[in-house]
Amino acid sequence: MRKISDSTVRRLSLYLRFLEQFQTQGRPTVSSEELARRGGATSAQVRKDLSFFGSFGKRGMGYEVPELVSRLREILGLQRVYRVVLVGAGKIGGALVHYEGFRRRGFEVSAIYDRDPKKIGSRSNGLVVRDVKQLEADLKKEPTDIAIVVTPAEAAQDVADRLVRAGVKALLNFAPVQLKVPRDVEVKTVNMAQELEALSYSLANR
Amino acid sequence: MRKISDSTVRRLSLYLRFLEQFQTQGRPTVSSEELARRGGATSAQVRKDLSFFGSFGKRGMGYEVPELVSRLREILGLQRVYRVVLVGAGKIGGALVHYEGFRRRGFEVSAIYDRDPKKIGSRSNGLVVRDVKQLEADLKKEPTDIAIVVTPAEAAQDVADRLVRAGVKALLNFAPVQLKVPRDVEVKTVNMAQELEALSYSLANR
Repeated sequence: MRKISDSTVRRLSLYLRFLEQFQTQGRPTVSSEELARRGGATSAQVRKDLSFFGSFGKRGMGYEVPELVSRLREILGLQRVYRVVLVGAGKIGGALVHYEGFRRRGFEVSAIYDRDPKKIGSRSNGLVVRDVKQLEADLKKEPTDIAIVVTPAEAAQDVADRLVRAGVKALLNFAPVQLKVPRDVEVKTVNMAQELEALSYSLANR
Repeated sequence: MRKISDSTVRRLSLYLRFLEQFQTQGRPTVSSEELARRGGATSAQVRKDLSFFGSFGKRGMGYEVPELVSRLREILGLQRVYRVVLVGAGKIGGALVHYEGFRRRGFEVSAIYDRDPKKIGSRSNGLVVRDVKQLEADLKKEPTDIAIVVTPAEAAQDVADRLVRAGVKALLNFAPVQLKVPRDVEVKTVNMAQELEALSYSLANR
């Protein structure tokens, strides 16, 4: 399979979301035009994105929803449940623990860590906050693919280093820093203040 | 001034963050190498990014921190406070109300709305949750540049339409949909599940 770009992967996620809605509604087929309308793309773009993975759909008939759902889930690696640990039990961390969008997609937050003695042992949306000192020992017993880093900026790189040494291969980073990781580890960064700054830039430069 | 790309704007935000830390520490100058190291870029990239805005810094001396901070704040439109409203008082919305990273940057969340009668009138981190029915009337009295949309997917487009009609020019969207807005309105989307899906894609296709 060809290497596909990050922006294609993001559109595939979005198509999958709509297709699952159609599936819930019992619709058998969907056209590239309809997927395009929902996904903010053109129908040519939809056909191009899906053509990466071989031919789906018949001319004039549209795509079969269940087939396309299962193929997209396979492509995106969503046919299994991922164990996810979260480091940082602040307000955002606490909210993410039970973010439904994660669980629905098979991302199961199974542990949350903090270093603050006031937080350790408390419950955060059903999970008991663990001492971050336990991180390595826990990861040895409970191998984990994905970690979410929601620490303050100054703690994030150290936490990332520890996660990587413990075998975590994918990080979702909410701290406002660029994490440095080895080549075989994937990092995505969500920087909410930076998104607002991109908006203020556009407001200031209209 | 030339139109600069979204990814350049993001790097400028990041440089500003480090420069502000240096300023707090009382450091007078910084080299492009140091900014590059912190920002995960090359020093050539840093010099190129900053050259968009005229010449800063002297060869061999580095950049003067206070001058560069104030210039970057100006470029990013951060020399004022932005009034921000937030629609959706769920867990994530509630956490965002007092996200320190926003306030520190001059983004002041001044109102939070929901349509759920059980939430309306309750306090969410110090703000009383208002009825979303009041949105238009409130925005008329309190003009607002930026709105954060944290509603369920199916409500997001309608909320966005109402915000746009009421004069909001910039939206930060956390709902898992592509919002359609007029050309003169800027939207940034933060899709946390989609970020995890980009990670599962890379785990599944290593």
